[in-house]
Amino acid sequence: MTDSTKYLLEEEQIPKAWYNVVADLPEPPAPVLHPGTGQPVGPDDLAPLFPMALIGQEVSADREIGIPDPVRDVYRLWRPTPLYRARRLEQALDTPAKIFYKYEGVSPTGSHKPNTAVAQAFYNKEEGITKIATETGAGQWGSSLAFAGGVFGIEIRVFMVKVSYQQKPYRRAMMETFGASCVASPSTETEAGKAVLADNPDSTGSLGIAISEAVEIAATNDDTKYALGSVLNHVLTHQTVVGQEAILQMEMADAYPDVLVGCTGGGSNFAGLVFPFIGNKLRGGPDVEVVAVEPAACPSLTRGQFAYDFGDTKMMTPLVKMHTLGASFVPPGFHAGGLRYHGMGPLVSHLFDLDLIRAVAYHQTECFTAGVQFARSEGITPAPEANHAVKGAIDEALKCKAEGTSRNILFNLCGHGHFDMTAYSEYHAGNLKDEDYSQDELAMALAGLPKVAAE
Amino acid sequence: MTDSTKYLLEEEQIPKAWYNVVADLPEPPAPVLHPGTGQPVGPDDLAPLFPMALIGQEVSADREIGIPDPVRDVYRLWRPTPLYRARRLEQALDTPAKIFYKYEGVSPTGSHKPNTAVAQAFYNKEEGITKIATETGAGQWGSSLAFAGGVFGIEIRVFMVKVSYQQKPYRRAMMETFGASCVASPSTETEAGKAVLADNPDSTGSLGIAISEAVEIAATNDDTKYALGSVLNHVLTHQTVVGQEAILQMEMADAYPDVLVGCTGGGSNFAGLVFPFIGNKLRGGPDVEVVAVEPAACPSLTRGQFAYDFGDTKMMTPLVKMHTLGASFVPPGFHAGGLRYHGMGPLVSHLFDLDLIRAVAYHQTECFTAGVQFARSEGITPAPEANHAVKGAIDEALKCKAEGTSRNILFNLCGHGHFDMTAYSEYHAGNLKDEDYSQDELAMALAGLPKVAAE
Repeated sequence: MTDSTKYLLEEEQIPKAWYNVVADLPEPPAPVLHPGTGQPVGPDDLAPLFPMALIGQEVSADREIGIPDPVRDVYRLWRPTPLYRARRLEQALDTPAKIFYKYEGVSPTGSHKPNTAVAQAFYNKEEGITKIATETGAGQWGSSLAFAGGVFGIEIRVFMVKVSYQQKPYRRAMMETFGASCVASPSTETEAGKAVLADNPDSTGSLGIAISEAVEIAATNDDTKYALGSVLNHVLTHQTVVGQEAILQMEMADAYPDVLVGCTGGGSNFAGLVFPFIGNKLRGGPDVEVVAVEPAACPSLTRGQFAYDFGDTKMMTPLVKMHTLGASFVPPGFHAGGLRYHGMGPLVSHLFDLDLIRAVAYHQTECFTAGVQFARSEGITPAPEANHAVKGAIDEALKCKAEGTSRNILFNLCGHGHFDMTAYSEYHAGNLKDEDYSQDELAMALAGLPKVAAE
Repeated sequence: MTDSTKYLLEEEQIPKAWYNVVADLPEPPAPVLHPGTGQPVGPDDLAPLFPMALIGQEVSADREIGIPDPVRDVYRLWRPTPLYRARRLEQALDTPAKIFYKYEGVSPTGSHKPNTAVAQAFYNKEEGITKIATETGAGQWGSSLAFAGGVFGIEIRVFMVKVSYQQKPYRRAMMETFGASCVASPSTETEAGKAVLADNPDSTGSLGIAISEAVEIAATNDDTKYALGSVLNHVLTHQTVVGQEAILQMEMADAYPDVLVGCTGGGSNFAGLVFPFIGNKLRGGPDVEVVAVEPAACPSLTRGQFAYDFGDTKMMTPLVKMHTLGASFVPPGFHAGGLRYHGMGPLVSHLFDLDLIRAVAYHQTECFTAGVQFARSEGITPAPEANHAVKGAIDEALKCKAEGTSRNILFNLCGHGHFDMTAYSEYHAGNLKDEDYSQDELAMALAGLPKVAAE
């Protein structure tokens, strides 16, 4: 088995529990605070938006959270996902390193997002919820929740940032195929949307506006909840099926990883891969180097502050302690829409602060160059977000080559790029730009961070 | 294992030989004829276009054609492909039937096409060929040959029908990602293209024109050959890895198929699945019912004649005996571009003539309805072509329900629809039309079939 290209598991090997890294940390993460009182929020504060089971998971310190059978049963449609040895990429790089990747692109929507979408839809269903509202930027999350809602008979309404709604009609078609409805945001369906349109009828929308619309629908309708595709603890925890499977598969390959690499936006695909390995280490297992790769145009870990901040750009949410560029920071446009978030998931931020993770930042063009080399070697065209992880892994492999050492590198190929080929067209035509943010705007956004007594 | 959702094989179980159904047929297929002389063509007639190894396979009567190790090694990037039990679809249909599907969408380009593209690129490489020209309609074949050319260091030039080139830029981006060049046809790079443009500068092209351009490039350049993605015997034979794997996987499921279903355009995905099972039957194995599903708007098996005809609409190719609507027949527009071919592969036609296969024809809207039901149950959004197979399988399952019998139904889900979501958008918007061809035009096309003494 050790000379295989793919390492596959049986369906019985789908994890039976999600792994909660909080249980193994030397200190707990900071609590979430109410923006008005500055005091930790309680379950009742979150109840209008989330079912109680998920609120419980959000604050849980249990190491294992059992995966309900109906969720595992849906996972079986695509899980366990394959883990590959990138032999052709190693040859192309002429590196002594062994490169492995976990491939989440085999899911119904082509990324890791359904791992949590299915869980969230299930818990909502269990508590009698019949409708969920959410936002989506590039469309990965919206289509994943659409799929999950279809499975459990929950009506999904997706507010999709208008510019993406217009540029990526394929994602919308996929949501509708799974039975969801998708409207361009700002819309006339909410007060928040109407207010924006009154101000600017031509608004192309933003993730912040779309969040406000979805939250409004959930907060004002008893039968409707809200769902988020990254950042929150329970979301990151649901993704740990990725890393747990990878541990078994690396055992099959007889190669425990020396380095783990993942791309980071809100942090969910990254956490999904690395938390179980970090847990091993914290419980006395083998050491492992962990590299978070972020876009240089939105570098929350490498250039942000570890501080309490709002989760949304409209500054309506509870305050979470995270690495942030400031809620008012607007990154320049780039193709990895899933990485365009001002903050980093609180758990990833906490582990970074504890020196369990290091971070690097790359510009998009060098990431596309890496992605094209990967596609030609391995046959899979990565999503723009995943290209950041590919670039990080290639750089680790080239470091091995320069040093003449062999290391086992494992990265998360969190999704394919079938719905993002416009970005590849621009790359091939030489039209990709590496725009930088304004240092002044970053300084202003950081200066605007809320003052919180608990810090 | 029999209650699994997926049946997976080890890489060692990738077939070591392609299966050539000709060896087991009660009578051989009719020879290919030279259009000028009316006599069977020899290898030298085909040598300008194809490497000798493939010409040899085209006329071979050997049961097994060994798969070269370098080809099997590339197959390992995605093969063996999974075989699924469609448990959720069965539940949705409330049928006593067991529905299985072989899923070829996990390949680098999302369909079965790389199975033959890799083989063809390899044999060209072995004979010192450095360039291959080909045509593509919807882009599935062009992107698959692009991938294969990249692997073996062969320059691929794809002539893509201009209307598709404009409507499906994502496919072109994928070809370029794999290192191929893709030009809109008619182009100014060939005499054939220039002649069309001189006549009609606004021509949106056709598969016939694109074939003529690619063939011209191959015929007039010593270092360049031509490659075809379906119809020919060697292409269909390369696809038999699909059915051979499926036989092993159905054994794992302890369920030999009672009915096989596949969609048919040129016939390659269909043949790939069914030929190994038909071979079993011809050698005294279990009986199996075989259903070819074709588009009602281009029904070569159900409405065509079994006659010698040209392979291309410009009537330049050798004459092959096949079920055909006439080389001058132009089907109305529909979304399953891969099924818009006037003829059916000679081997599939021969087996149909021998009553080893039956055929049904469906309109596209009912196929999309089936595809959407499939996506909501199984999580995979099928290609428009594959929707025909889904519809065929669902109808077989509903027949079982009506009769109160349980049968094992196996169909080939030959590709995903990630590059065809425009068609789904039209379906959801209620804008899909079921256009019929003109009976007069069909009669004229059939009347124009070449007169061949050998018939």
